Amino acid sequence: MVKALVLEKKGELSLRDFPLEQTLGPADVRIDIRTVGVCGSDVHYYTHGKIGPFVVNEPMILGHEAAGVVVEVGADVRHLSVGDRVCMEPGIPDQTSRASKLGIYNVDPSVQFWATPPVHGCLTPQVVHPAAFTYKLPDNVSFAEGAMVEPFAIGMQSALRARIQPGDIAVVTGAGPIGMMTALAALAGGCAKVFVADLAQPKLDIIGAYDGIETINIRNKPVAEAIAEATDGWGADVVFECSGAAPAILGVPALARPGGTVVLVGMPVDPVPMDVVGLQAKELRIETVFRYANIYDRAIALIGAGKVDLTPLISATLPFEDSIAAFDRAVEARETDVKIQIELPAS
Amino acid sequence: MVKALVLEKKGELSLRDFPLEQTLGPADVRIDIRTVGVCGSDVHYYTHGKIGPFVVNEPMILGHEAAGVVVEVGADVRHLSVGDRVCMEPGIPDQTSRASKLGIYNVDPSVQFWATPPVHGCLTPQVVHPAAFTYKLPDNVSFAEGAMVEPFAIGMQSALRARIQPGDIAVVTGAGPIGMMTALAALAGGCAKVFVADLAQPKLDIIGAYDGIETINIRNKPVAEAIAEATDGWGADVVFECSGAAPAILGVPALARPGGTVVLVGMPVDPVPMDVVGLQAKELRIETVFRYANIYDRAIALIGAGKVDLTPLISATLPFEDSIAAFDRAVEARETDVKIQIELPAS
Amino acid sequence: MVKALVLEKKGELSLRDFPLEQTLGPADVRIDIRTVGVCGSDVHYYTHGKIGPFVVNEPMILGHEAAGVVVEVGADVRHLSVGDRVCMEPGIPDQTSRASKLGIYNVDPSVQFWATPPVHGCLTPQVVHPAAFTYKLPDNVSFAEGAMVEPFAIGMQSALRARIQPGDIAVVTGAGPIGMMTALAALAGGCAKVFVADLAQPKLDIIGAYDGIETINIRNKPVAEAIAEATDGWGADVVFECSGAAPAILGVPALARPGGTVVLVGMPVDPVPMDVVGLQAKELRIETVFRYANIYDRAIALIGAGKVDLTPLISATLPFEDSIAAFDRAVEARETDVKIQIELPAS
Amino acid sequence: MVKALVLEKKGELSLRDFPLEQTLGPADVRIDIRTVGVCGSDVHYYTHGKIGPFVVNEPMILGHEAAGVVVEVGADVRHLSVGDRVCMEPGIPDQTSRASKLGIYNVDPSVQFWATPPVHGCLTPQVVHPAAFTYKLPDNVSFAEGAMVEPFAIGMQSALRARIQPGDIAVVTGAGPIGMMTALAALAGGCAKVFVADLAQPKLDIIGAYDGIETINIRNKPVAEAIAEATDGWGADVVFECSGAAPAILGVPALARPGGTVVLVGMPVDPVPMDVVGLQAKELRIETVFRYANIYDRAIALIGAGKVDLTPLISATLPFEDSIAAFDRAVEARETDVKIQIELPAS
Repeated sequence: MVKALVLEKKGELSLRDFPLEQTLGPADVRIDIRTVGVCGSDVHYYTHGKIGPFVVNEPMILGHEAAGVVVEVGADVRHLSVGDRVCMEPGIPDQTSRASKLGIYNVDPSVQFWATPPVHGCLTPQVVHPAAFTYKLPDNVSFAEGAMVEPFAIGMQSALRARIQPGDIAVVTGAGPIGMMTALAALAGGCAKVFVADLAQPKLDIIGAYDGIETINIRNKPVAEAIAEATDGWGADVVFECSGAAPAILGVPALARPGGTVVLVGMPVDPVPMDVVGLQAKELRIETVFRYANIYDRAIALIGAGKVDLTPLISATLPFEDSIAAFDRAVEARETDVKIQIELPAS
Repeated sequence: MVKALVLEKKGELSLRDFPLEQTLGPADVRIDIRTVGVCGSDVHYYTHGKIGPFVVNEPMILGHEAAGVVVEVGADVRHLSVGDRVCMEPGIPDQTSRASKLGIYNVDPSVQFWATPPVHGCLTPQVVHPAAFTYKLPDNVSFAEGAMVEPFAIGMQSALRARIQPGDIAVVTGAGPIGMMTALAALAGGCAKVFVADLAQPKLDIIGAYDGIETINIRNKPVAEAIAEATDGWGADVVFECSGAAPAILGVPALARPGGTVVLVGMPVDPVPMDVVGLQAKELRIETVFRYANIYDRAIALIGAGKVDLTPLISATLPFEDSIAAFDRAVEARETDVKIQIELPAS
Repeated sequence: MVKALVLEKKGELSLRDFPLEQTLGPADVRIDIRTVGVCGSDVHYYTHGKIGPFVVNEPMILGHEAAGVVVEVGADVRHLSVGDRVCMEPGIPDQTSRASKLGIYNVDPSVQFWATPPVHGCLTPQVVHPAAFTYKLPDNVSFAEGAMVEPFAIGMQSALRARIQPGDIAVVTGAGPIGMMTALAALAGGCAKVFVADLAQPKLDIIGAYDGIETINIRNKPVAEAIAEATDGWGADVVFECSGAAPAILGVPALARPGGTVVLVGMPVDPVPMDVVGLQAKELRIETVFRYANIYDRAIALIGAGKVDLTPLISATLPFEDSIAAFDRAVEARETDVKIQIELPAS
Repeated sequence: MVKALVLEKKGELSLRDFPLEQTLGPADVRIDIRTVGVCGSDVHYYTHGKIGPFVVNEPMILGHEAAGVVVEVGADVRHLSVGDRVCMEPGIPDQTSRASKLGIYNVDPSVQFWATPPVHGCLTPQVVHPAAFTYKLPDNVSFAEGAMVEPFAIGMQSALRARIQPGDIAVVTGAGPIGMMTALAALAGGCAKVFVADLAQPKLDIIGAYDGIETINIRNKPVAEAIAEATDGWGADVVFECSGAAPAILGVPALARPGGTVVLVGMPVDPVPMDVVGLQAKELRIETVFRYANIYDRAIALIGAGKVDLTPLISATLPFEDSIAAFDRAVEARETDVKIQIELPAS
């Protein structure tokens, strides 16, 4: 029995004892969890009981953005030791699968992902995890930052898929948490300037406080007009579509330069109309993003080097015993909140 | 005055004398036209009087798929001589533009393209053309084949944008002329096998006669099912969408393997619904195609080397004086016709 | 005890009983070996007792190019069944390593490779192998061809690293077995034409018999001169250096076009002079090759589709009991021999 | 007659009147020169009278790193106006050449490059230049910075060729001006950290003063050892070889990670030994660099956005009348000097 934040069913959370067995295999480590971020998907399971085909039919532990301390290492583990401060990739693929052999283990259909039914998450004091998906944090990176690596990794995956060239101009449509992460990854990843467009001014204020980010409130000016002005009519080298909103997706071609790149990060629930001829007339390349692979090392390197500071995006931190309150605040979706985190006590 | 096939206005063609002045600049060549293919866009201007924003407001000479013989060369021309058998790229960009400097002159907004209003085409005995966009044909490549380089170049551009890896499995949806060209380019370009899906059996019979092409009649079996069977459920490495049909575009994700590539070649007139989450779940890359750039050399090399034989796709050849009949046959759109060509007499 | 071809020490082979234990793990298959090719590295261990840091200190079973039949499958194996005809990747990486996660398992420093001391090879009637590195052969691919997949995979890796664009012109310097494999992979992989240069006419005769391959005997004409003539002075798009010979490596820049690609396939024992400024003046990209990763599927697809026929390269086939004779013939290095194979009886 | 800094012959400079005719074509602009940097190649022509095949046989105006103000525009020029502050690409290709069409105009064999015999440079009050190779400076970028764009562009080209992925770790061997430019470009271009190795401590002190750069004095510790320590034995993602020194080039494989990238920036005069097998064992990709193409826009964007500050690298600024003194100081090659600039008066 472990203590855990359990989603009993749609709309019902408990912080309670839960029967979870976790055996340490030779390639695993056991980790004391210290900080866990609350993600939109966690909240969605709470409020809707499902995401697409993934339905919560049994009580499930939530949480997948975590950092902690290694307390035990399996017999074959070489690169981690007891006492190492770490963060974890929440998705565990079959490393012998065809996708994994290709290096794209994120699209291995057999991935087991924390807090995706029926797989339990990490909002519990201890977890066992494969060492291959556990990453050491530098001394100057806090647990709070370590727990931000997971959402930042999505922004980083977007930046890598974009194949940014040094000095590119990018635009991000949608200033939600993932839009912000993407903007910061694009900026750290070589863009000269990143424009972020949204209609919620408080969100724009948060991300616009970073050097190198310029914001566009689309209530005041169409984003296409703003980008045309900023680029002498040429367009942005890279468009990161992070809103998932149908009009934004339809309007993508107008934002990009001839031969530019579009990265579809936002996830619209249903099929949405796309302007295929508009995309073709500029011969745009469109990349899509699904989680991340081989990103944690480089995300941690950028944070550790001080090239990315994610701490301004941590809006509130609550103790483990107030986990349900943390989720209820996340459900509120305040425009001034980016990330709510939960702290677990050192054991 | 030159003799020319003139689109007087929507629905009305004349083969008549036309006032066309063509001065030979120092970087130009003058070419005796020998063979011109009839393209779907020529036919569309004939039947509809416009394509998107391009409207036929004045009489315009048609034709843009051409081969011929150099009869005069400008003072600065080095790589061509009188008597050279050649074919021509019909689009002339501003070579000092930003897009041209990047090597993507096909998306230079200032491109002048034959038979795109108000630019005249090449269905006339002689044209003047920049030497930089005029390509020598090897001795073993006929004028008829030379006039096929233009449509084949679109298939080649699609194959290049796909970044085929040797041994890839590809699927082409839509067996129109461009779908066929794309299938042949993909096959010559390194695919182990190319599946072509359509519902018109006569078209499938034509393209299916090539070694390495397998056909799927979607009246008999959904293309997704056929591809799943052929790839043990993994999916195709590359999907070339050449139909422009909404259901085909929506269904693209089911055809591709995780981490695969989609090339959008077909041009749906209006925005069409796309399954963004389906594309993301396999983290597909989507490329678009707009005409071609830096393709003619390599297209000619493949034809000259015998790796691609386009002659089976030439369905009928009519003399210049029967140009209007040639267009009227193209309007019929017989399922057994791929390409109609017009031959001009040697001068 | 199994029967095996054992390299007792430098210069001494035995076909004898050997104590080899092979336990079938849940992710493994057991394979009856049917055909094994003799590779230059096998021969080098025989004649020199070592390759670089790999020294034969104990008796070692030779052989790493093999095809056979699955006779037993581990409990977790899904994609293979008893009776499947297969070929095998001889290198087994740690699939949880950093390199493997990136998809470049060939450069995982912990790879275990057949017949590389102290790892035993496959010249024995049965082997146990991870299913993840065992590949099913289509019905129309023989065991002999299946055993050619390994050397062909090196050619394929070279072709993939080159990132061939459809219609490229390539040149291969060095017509040894790997040069031939590379030429065929490049041709199947989208090149319009592949030139192969060597000074041994019998080798050139063998590879020159393929459509699309042109040969250059460098006794008669410098390869740079031949390539300049064939490309109007522009140069080849891709240069595959397969000789490992110092003069060939030094002369590489003269063969490539501006912005072209060089693939260093041949392995010179010691550092060799390279013309760095010559490479820079054309801004060439140089790729290197180390074995292969994620290649077998696509190599088999090309062979199965009939795009590559490797059977003309099988120069002689000897029965298992004549294995030592097979090696002794390979040691002769006749200019008319490309590949010697050894056949094992069906059990 | 214009006033100009003229290299009369090897070892002899004059600041004198010079007969230079400069006609403004329709696609040209006339520019008042304000700042010109002294480059190592200028100095080399001064001290040696030649670089490779380029020999100073006639008096030649020096200088190719320049910024100024547009004072006249040709009839067809659209994107520039009188009064625009600009910097110029010193190499003018034939924009209709095969290389230019491909977007790699830097390797067009017919490039005319300032101060490369017999082409005159820009150390004179006014020049005429093609508008297509003249770039507007933002208001916050000084003429001094504008004249730094040229050398920085080489660093940028190196960073682009490397295809940096966000969060990469890079190492630069050689802390000369180009090594410094490359380090800054790599850092701005997405690297988490850039190590710079040299044996001249004053140079390391200059570049080490930038955030994100760490220096390695190879007198104290072999660079391979330092990189191994910094990367847990994995190696750097990208190695920029900027010294041109034979031992550095030979030692490159030890610095890179498996599957990593090497960029050869430094130009050794003669062929140098390379460890081909060492490069292959990690399957490294090697890129070479020749000047730059399509870089100025993005270099200016990074400088204008404040992501790169080149002003600490401007070691001294002398007035036009002291040009010879400026060159003589550059000849001294003080370890504390990076770039010497010459200022021309506003006309």
